[in-house]
Amino acid sequence: MTMITIMEIREAARRIAPYIHRTPVLTCSAIDNQADCRLFFKCENFQKVGAFKMRGATNAVFSLSDEEAARGVATHSSGNHAQALALAARLRGVTAYVVMPTSAPAVKKAAVAGYGAEIIDCEPTLQARESTLAEVVKRTGAVFIHPYDNARIIAGQATSALELLEDRPNLDVMMAPVGGGGLLSGTALSTRALAPGARVIAAEPCGADDAARSLTAGHIIPSVNPDTVADGLLTSLGKLNFPIIRDHVETIWTVDDAAIITAMRLIWERMKIIVEPSSAVCLAAVLQHAGEMKDLNIGIIISGGNVDLDHLPWHADKLKKEE
Amino acid sequence: MTMITIMEIREAARRIAPYIHRTPVLTCSAIDNQADCRLFFKCENFQKVGAFKMRGATNAVFSLSDEEAARGVATHSSGNHAQALALAARLRGVTAYVVMPTSAPAVKKAAVAGYGAEIIDCEPTLQARESTLAEVVKRTGAVFIHPYDNARIIAGQATSALELLEDRPNLDVMMAPVGGGGLLSGTALSTRALAPGARVIAAEPCGADDAARSLTAGHIIPSVNPDTVADGLLTSLGKLNFPIIRDHVETIWTVDDAAIITAMRLIWERMKIIVEPSSAVCLAAVLQHAGEMKDLNIGIIISGGNVDLDHLPWHADKLKKEE
Repeated sequence: MTMITIMEIREAARRIAPYIHRTPVLTCSAIDNQADCRLFFKCENFQKVGAFKMRGATNAVFSLSDEEAARGVATHSSGNHAQALALAARLRGVTAYVVMPTSAPAVKKAAVAGYGAEIIDCEPTLQARESTLAEVVKRTGAVFIHPYDNARIIAGQATSALELLEDRPNLDVMMAPVGGGGLLSGTALSTRALAPGARVIAAEPCGADDAARSLTAGHIIPSVNPDTVADGLLTSLGKLNFPIIRDHVETIWTVDDAAIITAMRLIWERMKIIVEPSSAVCLAAVLQHAGEMKDLNIGIIISGGNVDLDHLPWHADKLKKEE
Repeated sequence: MTMITIMEIREAARRIAPYIHRTPVLTCSAIDNQADCRLFFKCENFQKVGAFKMRGATNAVFSLSDEEAARGVATHSSGNHAQALALAARLRGVTAYVVMPTSAPAVKKAAVAGYGAEIIDCEPTLQARESTLAEVVKRTGAVFIHPYDNARIIAGQATSALELLEDRPNLDVMMAPVGGGGLLSGTALSTRALAPGARVIAAEPCGADDAARSLTAGHIIPSVNPDTVADGLLTSLGKLNFPIIRDHVETIWTVDDAAIITAMRLIWERMKIIVEPSSAVCLAAVLQHAGEMKDLNIGIIISGGNVDLDHLPWHADKLKKEE
């Protein structure tokens, strides 16, 4: 098993510092009052490309030797990782090849293309995605950068919690949402090293609770037909990510979509910041477990702020109610 | 004519400091690239009650003698000033009486009541509003705090530009939106005192361009049937505000609602912050005058972030187009 040390995380932080934003830590007394604890939001929605993914992608791309980098980097993603890898590659002056399903929204393809990446279409199946990626790597010699099952990605994502703990060393609890586990495993490693007494708690949508079930089972249970408004958290846990989560995460709280949407709207209304549904999962979990968290200092990694402003989840909800 | 000196503005800043947030100044390289200048956004959307109005209201309420304050404060407003006055009064431990039209949205009444104010309903006409307010003042002895035509309100609103110029002393241009003129007159006074070489430029919706017409005419032209998405900017210029604006504001640029909505959405998408339409009027004007602003350092006061998340302007637009 690959070990990722705090030295590697600090190295990642130094490596990516010229290319990323040091994001602010925001607080909100109205939400603190409601949750009956003190929340410190590490705002990766203000990160480049609007998500924490920029940290891992930048670390992965800038960790490559000149020879490796020259052939470019490749990935399959229709989400924030695709944009992050595209921008990181452009910053290094190399090509990013991004395999995207034909079903991906035009606006997401445009964003990736806008950062100068070469997009390769594939059928919207896991098999087509993997075989198309394999072809691209074979043809170009590009280095495959997995969205989360990659030690350099994990070390990069870990830098968000590292910064948060530099700014707020006295956290009792550190929280992150979990999808593939890149952010959560990195967050857990930084917290273990810098705040060994702090509890690490994850939050996950009920409709994509493979990580919670995997933690209970003691082995990875793949995500099958996940369904949640938190569309950044649909993926299954990675092989590198799982053991880190198993060893360092105390528990994974699950919350339903209604609670996620309520928490998201609370952040929008009270904090006046735009966060994506995946970013609201931790607050939803805190509100659900308010009694257990009384007066604690809780760090929450806000994962990103990329939402479709034409289709906000409370509109969908409203429409459903009206039907 | 009442003079408001920089000493009074500094005094206001000291007076309100314990009760307000020092709001951050944000920048956005993507928007700078599009506008071809450097923009420094002073984010009053992060202010208490979600708007700059908290500054003026707090200064006005805490400027009163104990004897004056004991009888409470009163105003007519269905907007951010009502909430700000309600909260400022609660912080001082006195009663706020707020005259609101029966047509005001329930959510706005609830917000004002939530800060502990006493709401007095009136018919939705200017005459009813003024006569009801007069009755309330007569009955209670409360001090009337006008939303903008009041020297202490102006001195309070001036503290936002004061802070911005403390953080960024080298601005070439300072911009604020104009409705009644409380924010703009205060902004102009702070800028004249602290950055005498900086140009002060205002922005106003075409559909409520009474300030621009007043500036041209040399006297106040009241706002008649204004119609704009920037619902914080519907009011006519105040008597105290006009001469300050006339003497210190270089020009008032007008922009149509489509440009305001585009600028608002650009801020939401690129900066990941929630601003109300009135806050986007200055950016809309900058984008419209991009050629003239090349490479300048421009401060923009973001007035607030109180929007109805169920009815965002681009949805209305979309519906209209689909009709």
